[in-house]
Amino acid sequence: MSILVVGSVALDTIHTPFGKVRDILGGSATYFSLSARFFSPVNLVAVVGEDFPEKNIVFLKKHNINLEGLVQKKDKTFRWIGEYDRCFSDAKTIATYLNVFAKFAPKIPQKYQNSSYVFLANIDPLIQEKVLKQVKHPKLIACDTMNFWIQNKRKQLLKLLKKIDVFLINESEAKELTLESNLLKAGKKIIKLGPKIVVIKRGEHGVLLFASNNIFIVPAFILESVIDPTGAGDTFAGGFMGYLAKTNILNIDSLRQAVVYGSIMASFTVEDFGLRRLGTIKLSNISKRLKQFKKYTSF
Amino acid sequence: MSILVVGSVALDTIHTPFGKVRDILGGSATYFSLSARFFSPVNLVAVVGEDFPEKNIVFLKKHNINLEGLVQKKDKTFRWIGEYDRCFSDAKTIATYLNVFAKFAPKIPQKYQNSSYVFLANIDPLIQEKVLKQVKHPKLIACDTMNFWIQNKRKQLLKLLKKIDVFLINESEAKELTLESNLLKAGKKIIKLGPKIVVIKRGEHGVLLFASNNIFIVPAFILESVIDPTGAGDTFAGGFMGYLAKTNILNIDSLRQAVVYGSIMASFTVEDFGLRRLGTIKLSNISKRLKQFKKYTSF
Repeated sequence: MSILVVGSVALDTIHTPFGKVRDILGGSATYFSLSARFFSPVNLVAVVGEDFPEKNIVFLKKHNINLEGLVQKKDKTFRWIGEYDRCFSDAKTIATYLNVFAKFAPKIPQKYQNSSYVFLANIDPLIQEKVLKQVKHPKLIACDTMNFWIQNKRKQLLKLLKKIDVFLINESEAKELTLESNLLKAGKKIIKLGPKIVVIKRGEHGVLLFASNNIFIVPAFILESVIDPTGAGDTFAGGFMGYLAKTNILNIDSLRQAVVYGSIMASFTVEDFGLRRLGTIKLSNISKRLKQFKKYTSF
Repeated sequence: MSILVVGSVALDTIHTPFGKVRDILGGSATYFSLSARFFSPVNLVAVVGEDFPEKNIVFLKKHNINLEGLVQKKDKTFRWIGEYDRCFSDAKTIATYLNVFAKFAPKIPQKYQNSSYVFLANIDPLIQEKVLKQVKHPKLIACDTMNFWIQNKRKQLLKLLKKIDVFLINESEAKELTLESNLLKAGKKIIKLGPKIVVIKRGEHGVLLFASNNIFIVPAFILESVIDPTGAGDTFAGGFMGYLAKTNILNIDSLRQAVVYGSIMASFTVEDFGLRRLGTIKLSNISKRLKQFKKYTSF
């Protein structure tokens, strides 16, 4: 099954202890797409400015991302400038220039409106809801968010949570949303807010999944070199949704596998700046790492 | 096989967001013993003062800890006063009164000198080495340490590491010892310092095991209520060593199982102050939680 993803396509400037890159291709929908494409066809809906480099379009097309929903407008592309310290804890945002993204009103192309699998990447929950209204018979709707929306659009976010199936959120956001410092309690509280499935992303500490009465805990794939964690969460979501859309089975076993695939995909992203690693790996790299991961974690 | 453990038996005063306890039974050797006893006979070597409450002796005996090596001296018992915030990150030491522990020169009773399994709990590496000289044909020697010794007795600690088999250390200490922020690199560096097996304890984020070319990653058992993390690391060590001494098999599969048992045991300790939980559970509680843990983590 193909997946519809609506989110940002951006130009990122990133400083880490290992170097600096300027105006490289980024954005939540981009990372998601580059990850999900290994499993299922990906239909991307986003907006970029007239300054968006042609080479990025070529890059996305080369990686089989369907760009019928990528609109180019007269303005500048969304830009994010961020920084990480040696601990790679949460990114420190230096600046955000919404530019063309400020007026983003996604219009879902007709042929995408029957999408069964939908991923609403981190954008204003009001826009996420507007996307939902354009999708006809979704089988699985997943959404991501961020602390900014939890703080500033809480009501709209809570309304949206009643309409989605999978909610992906990171650890600090889960605690902020539920005002609960214990993660097990936080996950159970979010389930009560509406989503049938809650995925709490814990960065280098792995992922927690809640699905009705089931819990799945998985550590992160351990790496000798982490260069840039930007996009890891969206890459995870891409592997997770991509695997589910591919198998088109939604039971606890496939959810566990989906979490593992998501974790594996994210482990590639953080090994280099931006999409350098995710844009060059092959299916064989994924299978090899999956095998290694099983060896690392089974008892 | 029985286990010899040498370390502290203390009286702890602990503040957490959930309450305060004063002068309760604690100490690294105590937590280790209360955990290991489920798997193997435990021979404890430690020193207490003349103020050590008789009820604690009764408690330890009731739990089948062999106390022939527990010496009572004219002075006060070792005391630790610590505090945790709501995040339960590393304990903040308010005060340490070494008292009788300042002159601790453990003498291993003759009948313990043939112990196959030896755990050197966190004490001065010089004392740990003196214990080793009294043990005749050990099959597996494990040791723990803390940042204080890494900073102040580095040379002695590095010398000791060449003589032991298993080194248990927490995440921040592993990074401090190796001056390496990446945990995979840190683990590999420690293996080069001597120990065949390195166990890095990551608190609520689980455990990492390195054994020659094998790596095992396991998350922590997830809990709805964490009251007091004091002694979790030593409880882990007790489950880990206890399981190995029980099976008396030292291959990668038994090491994995040992890590899992250690994690399960630690999950009980943190659920209440001091030894309240660890002192009351039964074997059936352990089996039940092990089953649950497998369900939570397998894919």
